[in-house]
Amino acid sequence: MRYRESGVDIDKANEATKAIARLVKKTWSPAVLSSIGSFGGLFEVPSGYSHPVLVSSMDGVGTKIMVARAARRYDTVGQDLVNHCVNDILVQGARPLFFLDYVAAGKIDPAMVADVVRGLALACEENGCALIGGETAEMPGLYQEGDFDLAGTIVGIVERDQIIDGARITPGDVIFALPSNGLHTNGYSLARRVMFDVMQLDIDARVESLRATVADELLRVHRSYLPPVMALREKLDIKGLAHITGGGILENLPRIFPKGCAARIEKGTWPVPAIFELIAREGDVVEGEMYRVFNMGAGMLIVVSPADASKMPSRIESLDVHRVGTIVKGEGDVTLV
Amino acid sequence: MRYRESGVDIDKANEATKAIARLVKKTWSPAVLSSIGSFGGLFEVPSGYSHPVLVSSMDGVGTKIMVARAARRYDTVGQDLVNHCVNDILVQGARPLFFLDYVAAGKIDPAMVADVVRGLALACEENGCALIGGETAEMPGLYQEGDFDLAGTIVGIVERDQIIDGARITPGDVIFALPSNGLHTNGYSLARRVMFDVMQLDIDARVESLRATVADELLRVHRSYLPPVMALREKLDIKGLAHITGGGILENLPRIFPKGCAARIEKGTWPVPAIFELIAREGDVVEGEMYRVFNMGAGMLIVVSPADASKMPSRIESLDVHRVGTIVKGEGDVTLV
Repeated sequence: MRYRESGVDIDKANEATKAIARLVKKTWSPAVLSSIGSFGGLFEVPSGYSHPVLVSSMDGVGTKIMVARAARRYDTVGQDLVNHCVNDILVQGARPLFFLDYVAAGKIDPAMVADVVRGLALACEENGCALIGGETAEMPGLYQEGDFDLAGTIVGIVERDQIIDGARITPGDVIFALPSNGLHTNGYSLARRVMFDVMQLDIDARVESLRATVADELLRVHRSYLPPVMALREKLDIKGLAHITGGGILENLPRIFPKGCAARIEKGTWPVPAIFELIAREGDVVEGEMYRVFNMGAGMLIVVSPADASKMPSRIESLDVHRVGTIVKGEGDVTLV
Repeated sequence: MRYRESGVDIDKANEATKAIARLVKKTWSPAVLSSIGSFGGLFEVPSGYSHPVLVSSMDGVGTKIMVARAARRYDTVGQDLVNHCVNDILVQGARPLFFLDYVAAGKIDPAMVADVVRGLALACEENGCALIGGETAEMPGLYQEGDFDLAGTIVGIVERDQIIDGARITPGDVIFALPSNGLHTNGYSLARRVMFDVMQLDIDARVESLRATVADELLRVHRSYLPPVMALREKLDIKGLAHITGGGILENLPRIFPKGCAARIEKGTWPVPAIFELIAREGDVVEGEMYRVFNMGAGMLIVVSPADASKMPSRIESLDVHRVGTIVKGEGDVTLV
C-alpha cells in the first residue's frame, strides 16, 4: 500500500506548493527573511517603534465558502479572509505585517488552491501585508469531495501609545459609519437558507432588485477599511473603531465601550444595501434579528469626540462617511431608533 | 426565521467563549495587553533584542482529528497542534510568544470546544506561550454532525544572528535524533486505513504488540522539543534542525541543506516504535514508503560539527539522543543504509 492509495497525494501537494510560491513571493517586502519551503516564516520586527505591540487575529470565512464552492469561484474568499483580518486588527490601530493561511480539503485540487491563494496574495498586496506561510491540508473523509475550508491569521503592529481601545469614549461622542458593500463575510447560513431554500434561486440566477446574480452578490469582496481609516487618523482623533461582523452592530459596537456607555443608532442615516431588504422580506426575518446577524450596510463604525465630528469629511478614499448615532449613558446596550 | 433556525446559534457560541476564557487567561504573561473579546490579540514585542525577528507557522493536525472524534477525546489534539507548531519555529531557533487557534464544526458543542481549548492552553503553558486569540466557527453543512477541524498559528521570536537555517552545514557534519513517541501528527490517513480498514480494529481495542489501546497509541501527544533543544543550545552550536513531519526524514531533512549536501542515515541506530512495525507489516507498506510518510521514531534531527558531536550528551531533558548519520557530498538526497 502506498500513501496515495489512502487518499493523500504528497506529489500533488508539492505541485500545488510550486504554483503558490510564485503568487506568494509578490507580496514579500525586504522584511521577509525566509524562503518558500522553510519550516516557519521569518519577518523582521520593523524598526522605528519605541514600544512595538503585535496585534493578531485569526478567522475563517464561515459558510461563504459554500457559496464559493457552488459558484466554483475560489479567489474572492481569499480576499475576503485577508480584508476581514486586516479590519479586525485595524480597529486597534494596527497596520498589517504578515498573514498565514490554512486551506483544508478532502482532495487537494491544485488549480483550486492556486485560485484561493491568488485571492489571498492580491489582498495581501493591496494591504501591504506579506503572505508569509500557510498549510494546505488534504483530509480525505473529513471534507466531502469538492468541499474545503479556509482560515487565516494576520499579525500587525502598533506603537503602544497609539493603540485604539475605546477607553476614552464618553457620552456625547459621535458615531460614524463607513459603508459595507453587502454581506461581507457574515450571516451566510441565514442568507443561503433564504436565497437557496426559501427563494429556490440558482447560484447563477439574476435578481433584478439586486441588479446582480446571486453569485456576484453573495461573493462581493469584504471591504478593507485600512486606506480610509489610516487617512482619517491623519485628520482627527479616533477614540474607537468597531468592525461590524457576526453579531452585527448590536454585539460588535459594545465590545469597545468603557463602563457607563451605550449607543443610540439612528436608522435611515445610512444606505442599507438591497440584499438586506431582500433577505428580511423573503425570509420573514424581523428587524432586530437582521441587525444582530448582518452589518446592514455599516461595515465599520468610528467613534470621535463632538469636536472631531465637525472635522469628519463626508467622503474618504472614495467611501461616503455617514453620521449614524451618538454615545449615551448606559450599560453597553445599543438602541436602534 | 431566526438565525438559530438556519443552524448557527450565537448564544451557544458565546457560552463556549466564556468557558474558554478561563482556560486561556492562565497562559497569559504581562506581555499580553488585550482582554478576552477584543477584536485582536495584543502582545508586546519583548525588549532586549537588537534585531528581533518574528518566526511564525500555521498548521492543522490532519486526520488525527478523526481519531480524536472516534475516541471522543478532544484535549490531546489541542496539545498536538501547539507542540507541532512550537517545533516548527524551534527549528529556526525561535522561542514561542503566542498562539491563535481555529476550531470549526458543523455544530458547536461547548463541552467539546472547551476540551480542545483545555489541551491548547495546557500545551501553551508548558511551552511558555500565550494563547492570545482564536475563532470558533459553526458551519452547518460543511462539517458533518460531530466532525470538526482544528488549525492554529504560532508566532515566536529569535535574535537575527541566532537564526538556525542550516546554511553552515557541510559534509562531515554529524546528524543526531531526538526520539518521537509514535506517529506524532503525521501519516494518519495511512495509519487509520491500516488499523481500521485492514486490521478492522475498534478504537478501544487493546493491541498487545503496542501495549496500548488503539486510541491511546494513535492519540499519544506530539512531543515538544523546546526543552531539550534549548538545553542543547547552551552546550553546543546547532547548525541545523529538522522537525520530522509529513514527508518523513526523506523530505524534511533536505529542507535545511545548503547546496552540495546530502545525508547518509543509518537505520538501526535509534529505536523505531512498535506502531511503525505494526503498520508496515499489517498494511504491507514498503520501507521506502514508511520513511516517506512517518517519522519512524525520529521526531527531531539535529546537525552539528564533528567537534560538537563529541560534546553531545547521550541524554537531555529525559530524552535519549541518538547519533543516526552524517552529512555527505550530494544534492539534497537522503540515503538510508
